[in-house]
Amino acid sequence: MSKSSAFATLPGALPGLMMDRPLLVTPLLEFAAQYHGDTEIISRSVEGPIHRITYAGLWTRTQKLAHTLVALGIKPGDRVATLAWNHWRHIELYFAVAGIGAICHTINPRLSGDQMKYIIDHAEDKLLFFDLTFADAVAANCKGSPSLKARIALSDAAHKPANPVLADVLMYEDLLAAQPDLYDFPEFDENTAASLCYTSGTTGHPKGVLYSHRALTLHSYAVCTTATMGLSVHDRALPVVPMFHVNAWGLPYAAPMSGCSLVMPGAKLDGPSLFDLMDTENVTCSQGVPTVWMGLLAAMRDKGRKPKALTRVLVGGAAVSEMLIDAFEKEFGVEVNHAWGMTEMTPLGVVNTLKPRFLKQTRAEQMPQKLKQGRAIFGVDLRIVDEDGKALPHDGKSAGHLQVRGPWIVKQYLKGGESPLTADGWFDTGDIATLDPDGYMQITDRAKDVIKSGGEWISSVDLENAALGHPKIAQAAVIGMPHEKWLERPLLICVANGPDKPTLDEVNEYLVSKVPKWWLPDAIAFVEAIPLGATGKIQKTKLREQFKDFAFKSTP
Amino acid sequence: MSKSSAFATLPGALPGLMMDRPLLVTPLLEFAAQYHGDTEIISRSVEGPIHRITYAGLWTRTQKLAHTLVALGIKPGDRVATLAWNHWRHIELYFAVAGIGAICHTINPRLSGDQMKYIIDHAEDKLLFFDLTFADAVAANCKGSPSLKARIALSDAAHKPANPVLADVLMYEDLLAAQPDLYDFPEFDENTAASLCYTSGTTGHPKGVLYSHRALTLHSYAVCTTATMGLSVHDRALPVVPMFHVNAWGLPYAAPMSGCSLVMPGAKLDGPSLFDLMDTENVTCSQGVPTVWMGLLAAMRDKGRKPKALTRVLVGGAAVSEMLIDAFEKEFGVEVNHAWGMTEMTPLGVVNTLKPRFLKQTRAEQMPQKLKQGRAIFGVDLRIVDEDGKALPHDGKSAGHLQVRGPWIVKQYLKGGESPLTADGWFDTGDIATLDPDGYMQITDRAKDVIKSGGEWISSVDLENAALGHPKIAQAAVIGMPHEKWLERPLLICVANGPDKPTLDEVNEYLVSKVPKWWLPDAIAFVEAIPLGATGKIQKTKLREQFKDFAFKSTP
Repeated sequence: MSKSSAFATLPGALPGLMMDRPLLVTPLLEFAAQYHGDTEIISRSVEGPIHRITYAGLWTRTQKLAHTLVALGIKPGDRVATLAWNHWRHIELYFAVAGIGAICHTINPRLSGDQMKYIIDHAEDKLLFFDLTFADAVAANCKGSPSLKARIALSDAAHKPANPVLADVLMYEDLLAAQPDLYDFPEFDENTAASLCYTSGTTGHPKGVLYSHRALTLHSYAVCTTATMGLSVHDRALPVVPMFHVNAWGLPYAAPMSGCSLVMPGAKLDGPSLFDLMDTENVTCSQGVPTVWMGLLAAMRDKGRKPKALTRVLVGGAAVSEMLIDAFEKEFGVEVNHAWGMTEMTPLGVVNTLKPRFLKQTRAEQMPQKLKQGRAIFGVDLRIVDEDGKALPHDGKSAGHLQVRGPWIVKQYLKGGESPLTADGWFDTGDIATLDPDGYMQITDRAKDVIKSGGEWISSVDLENAALGHPKIAQAAVIGMPHEKWLERPLLICVANGPDKPTLDEVNEYLVSKVPKWWLPDAIAFVEAIPLGATGKIQKTKLREQFKDFAFKSTP
Repeated sequence: MSKSSAFATLPGALPGLMMDRPLLVTPLLEFAAQYHGDTEIISRSVEGPIHRITYAGLWTRTQKLAHTLVALGIKPGDRVATLAWNHWRHIELYFAVAGIGAICHTINPRLSGDQMKYIIDHAEDKLLFFDLTFADAVAANCKGSPSLKARIALSDAAHKPANPVLADVLMYEDLLAAQPDLYDFPEFDENTAASLCYTSGTTGHPKGVLYSHRALTLHSYAVCTTATMGLSVHDRALPVVPMFHVNAWGLPYAAPMSGCSLVMPGAKLDGPSLFDLMDTENVTCSQGVPTVWMGLLAAMRDKGRKPKALTRVLVGGAAVSEMLIDAFEKEFGVEVNHAWGMTEMTPLGVVNTLKPRFLKQTRAEQMPQKLKQGRAIFGVDLRIVDEDGKALPHDGKSAGHLQVRGPWIVKQYLKGGESPLTADGWFDTGDIATLDPDGYMQITDRAKDVIKSGGEWISSVDLENAALGHPKIAQAAVIGMPHEKWLERPLLICVANGPDKPTLDEVNEYLVSKVPKWWLPDAIAFVEAIPLGATGKIQKTKLREQFKDFAFKSTP
């Protein structure tokens, strides 16, 4: 699967005369050990205490772990599962597993037991390394898998789980202690798989994304450039985003490349715990989803200050609100940068940093720009296309299907069938987005939620946000319903803010100055509650089920 | 020459499932046109006026130039020569030539006529694009080459050279004007050659280094990381280092990746001209050799201030002095970062930025660290080995042959014979260096100049610098001379500082507190002048020729 298999040498072209050196991830840690040997990785351990180790120490332990893996029978191509928080042992697993040509499969512990069983069997995991926190889940769900040869608890003999179902569990520290300090990692094709993460799709089974050494290394360079996280030797980064979620957005690979210190929060992701760890360990930057920052914001307000060295946070996973940006930046002087990516994208696609011309504007003028997801990183090609696949202009208004292409973007799922790519090789994100003349991308809706009204699109998300401004509306969701003339028209579903429910006319009178006139909902309905998923997103599939018999009055 | 030809898939390993997308350089400019379309490239034109163009404009002209090249018969693999300063048209050539699969061969105009003829013939250049400044050199030296199909002056019809020998010269702007705006650049193997630069070796013919698209793209990512130049969208970079010298250290590729503005100095590289351009155009960072900074320093002292937005300069090509660092940093608040690379390394290998722990030190304590060449960039492996190829410790003291390895380092020269690499695949730089426990590399000598005294090495450079401190010595050079007992011993060759020449004992009494006792020269000789090369380096080959009959008294 080399590069040149897809892109032939042009007839007559000369090959360059540069060394054939593969882009592999394990040298990232070796590099940090050599050039940043005394830089610390600080972790809140699952056992309790704060744990400190240097890159040099981590490199030695990674070599011991490689010996351990080989001793347990792991061979190139084997999948090794982890069920673990963000901490030093999980980093060791990333590099040791990939270093011997095997694949580190990070399992999301929030999956249901059935899903967990499904992906372990689907990935054919040979080993399972797990944190003590998840001992019960392992006992309940990870026993009968035919591929699993051993289960290893990420702790020492003193913490062996008492559960008799886990009597055969091996203890990580005991295994490492028995192994030598030096391991001669092989060099191999950079297109070899290094890690595996399943998407938590809302429909169907989770799908496995298989990251290559090449993709992860290129992504690391990108993460260390100023256009994205600008990680540097002066940073102390705290990734709140879990290592089981798209490799913690690549930080465990990018940090050793930059010599940045890592501060790992373990299992304690609540606001006060994060505040304390950030404050004590002089964390300069942190990365996570909006709900995490809401927790930290509450802790900062409680203390009346920010964690003392914190200068910036990167927000991804869901759209960030103006309130959150304002609170962090104005109240506490912590810069908020919006970012967007996907499990299928290793994951970074765009990051929002303001160009110089926006820096001359007032905060109010800047805000619409800051709320966009951001500008593409070099390596990620973005395009927006209409229903027929025709490219749309980058005018900040035309909304189309967002498609991506690049060396760290998925071309197929593990054991996938039909290609998930378009005929011309792009991955469709399932999002609807705009691109403005400055190149900032903004997601306006999920493709399956956008309302197709007479050939024009209505963003359900924008309409919901506008409706939420009405004083009598507490919660709002908009779904497209069949319409005889317009194909689809918006139905506004609300939770009223008290007993006085607004009429459709009342709401539309309010909305008319906020959205295009043809967006105005054709009907309003009230419910007791809007169904929300685990991450707080509206479950529109449930709403569609609930309103499947609804019909607009004008429809016969 | 794909990656996987050298590094096979491990038996049993799984390929990752990421898209096969090639790393090509021309998309860098397309990216800038899309995301930084209004960012300017400002050039001091050879014709005189300051010229301004945006990345969007440059991209259109690059497409016109691609059509022009094809119309002139250029095919993939063809070499297209340039003899040009740093300006927008030279950037267009970089991207258009590489974009069609041809190779941009940047010729150093400081070469002798014979050398110029040699490399044009050796590279078999098909076209030669030249600045008006070099019209006479072209008329004199670039006519008879059998491969050359056309010569194109980088200007418009109004500036056609009058020299009748150049009557057949085509004018760049006329050619572009006739071509359409859009060119559909092909995609091809990332290992394809994109540019060519000959080393100006002191002995033998110049040797051609053929950079691949892959190497240049990876190097660009590296240049945009904080560990190297940290180029950002907020920067306005002025590369003083010429585009004919290792692609101006990669800036014409890295700037569009970062969205950084480029300010190109054209032919005016003197201190006052650089100061004016930097000051007017709000240049934030600049890159060049020490002599350039001496010129700028004089201009800054003359004006009593720095160019107003200048914050940092990168110094490479030769070792930087403590005086220069102090003058820039203490007098003017401009940070100086040492860097090192080679034509064979695309060129960056190490950059000196201080780690956090050094920032706590006083300036005096920091200085020895700042004078080192710097820390390796991820991607460049460094090692120091003894005469037998045995790796030496990274203790900051053990000096050995500096060898390098990585995806942007040469594996062979154009039409080269025997591999220039060691048996285990490293490139020997010809330098002697130390590596300290923090990973900072310091070059102590050229391998051919180091004095091998009884199995121990004496750095000729360090001994010269120490001797220069003696009040009666104006210039000093040290060469190793044959010695019966010790194999080689140092001969100190001086230009006296006036009529009173110091004795060997007098000099050694001074030196004994500054260098190891066994380094003290065994003899002293006086000359009228020390022979210096074009770049100010001591020509030790000439000295060795001059002193070939010298013998130490103790030798029979």
